Amino acid sequence: MPDDPSKHFGDRLTAAIIAKKTPLVVGLDPRINQLPVNLTSSSDASSEEKQAELTAQFCCELIDVVADLVPAVKPQAAFFERLGWHGMVVLSRIVDYAKQRGLLVIMDAKRGDIGSTAQAYASAYLGPKPQSTWGCDCLTVNPYMGNDTLEPFVQVANQTGSGIFVLVKTSNPGSGTIQEQSVDGGANVGQKIYRIVADKVQELSADCIGQSGFGNIGAVVGATYPEQLAELREAMPNTIFLIPGFGAQGGSAADVAGGLDDKGLGGVINSSRGIIFAYQKPEYSGAKSWHAAVEQATHDAIARIADGTSASKLR
Amino acid sequence: MPDDPSKHFGDRLTAAIIAKKTPLVVGLDPRINQLPVNLTSSSDASSEEKQAELTAQFCCELIDVVADLVPAVKPQAAFFERLGWHGMVVLSRIVDYAKQRGLLVIMDAKRGDIGSTAQAYASAYLGPKPQSTWGCDCLTVNPYMGNDTLEPFVQVANQTGSGIFVLVKTSNPGSGTIQEQSVDGGANVGQKIYRIVADKVQELSADCIGQSGFGNIGAVVGATYPEQLAELREAMPNTIFLIPGFGAQGGSAADVAGGLDDKGLGGVINSSRGIIFAYQKPEYSGAKSWHAAVEQATHDAIARIADGTSASKLR
Repeated sequence: MPDDPSKHFGDRLTAAIIAKKTPLVVGLDPRINQLPVNLTSSSDASSEEKQAELTAQFCCELIDVVADLVPAVKPQAAFFERLGWHGMVVLSRIVDYAKQRGLLVIMDAKRGDIGSTAQAYASAYLGPKPQSTWGCDCLTVNPYMGNDTLEPFVQVANQTGSGIFVLVKTSNPGSGTIQEQSVDGGANVGQKIYRIVADKVQELSADCIGQSGFGNIGAVVGATYPEQLAELREAMPNTIFLIPGFGAQGGSAADVAGGLDDKGLGGVINSSRGIIFAYQKPEYSGAKSWHAAVEQATHDAIARIADGTSASKLR
Repeated sequence: MPDDPSKHFGDRLTAAIIAKKTPLVVGLDPRINQLPVNLTSSSDASSEEKQAELTAQFCCELIDVVADLVPAVKPQAAFFERLGWHGMVVLSRIVDYAKQRGLLVIMDAKRGDIGSTAQAYASAYLGPKPQSTWGCDCLTVNPYMGNDTLEPFVQVANQTGSGIFVLVKTSNPGSGTIQEQSVDGGANVGQKIYRIVADKVQELSADCIGQSGFGNIGAVVGATYPEQLAELREAMPNTIFLIPGFGAQGGSAADVAGGLDDKGLGGVINSSRGIIFAYQKPEYSGAKSWHAAVEQATHDAIARIADGTSASKLR
């Protein structure tokens, strides 16, 4: 156990969930062609630089709306990389701004590579500045290359009190291609790939448990696979889940319920489009601004999760 | 078949291999603490901005040395992301500079995500500017999330005449964790995961064969697994391989030989550290500059590959 829970990601995320009374996190997926019209119409949005500037404005205003409501935001790196290096300047600003507003930052970049390259990604993203370049609290990591490629991320996470979420069972329809294959030999005979990854993640997290009972090494498990979510919750008692797929991708509160423990802890539930582009949805068409639509959609998602899961215990 | 081979990645890469008479590609992995002393000692290298500037200088001078010798360079995104957004500015400059010097650019970023996020990564990196933000010829892609997550990359690659290399069997010692598991059910009973991915990649590449006989969808297969390399060469006749692990990681010319067809085509062989940091190796200690060490190491690697593989047919 760490002496100082403020230096342990599992503890920090758990404390933030308890403080905000919800496991909802907001995904920052700023697709440029979906930005509110009153942002884009006021100026020339044709250059990457200008698009990046609008993206920064949108994300900072989003952060202002949700900062008091949720424990963390999850920027999706792809939508910033899409805007070239201008987008990366903006991503850096947004990470800093979210942290300044008291939010944890889960960088959703799904990195993964071997040896010293994995080390470079880990040092780039994990932990406070200036040791880390980007200063994020957490990074999503892809396990396809093997257990040895997780090690540099685990080591840096534990050194810096940051975390990783390893892709275990993802929310997309085709996630079975590899993840659902069951294996025919060795110690894992009959087990599915996602379960082999899950067992490794639980082992890694059990090695770095904080005062919360959770470690720094989390797992991505999609809301769209509620059976696997419940199975893995039981198999991974010390592992925090990042649960995508709630809302726009079809996952309901009932679907995510199995991902939380009986105190409403052990998982964060991400919603991106359903919140940040709420202004496009008929039910929020009466909102006086896109900000008001986002705020109402956030409250609604928090309420849906509380009504349908053990997150009610946090209230 | 495309009408214009200059608009097809498989054809463009094959033509470049034939023109340069070698399948060697140079990996740009600019670890900041390994840059030549005469670069770093002349100035304060403590800030990210300054480190990025030195990285740009190093990579551009590397490109000058190898531009006439090899078909492509492979920047490793991690070492640029490590330098924050300053590193991304430099990465963008380096891509442009390599293309200006007539090299193909394989962006080694191992991206992978679902639906519109994968679409954003594909549009970010693949194809010529301005449709693509970064303007690369090719991107490495991670298949763990499933076949549906490959589709946006395949579509953009085929539309823009660019390519992807999908991770199949990677060069690291732990690559077996997932890739070497053999499965016990369905159409693939008894097959290993890497082979299931390989069969999908071959199918995708067979759907977009150019005049060269190769498609736009390639596979990463490590030099450190020569048996699998030879097995996959036979199973994937229309797929170009990106073969890492040659040189510093231990792969010899004999190890990579099975990755090329009988004309010396169908693969590119990457060397990073062994070439770009050649000045640190005892055998090049007599070189009059780090540039001269790089040039000699490139010639030596080309000769070793030609002597030990069918790439001799290209000479």
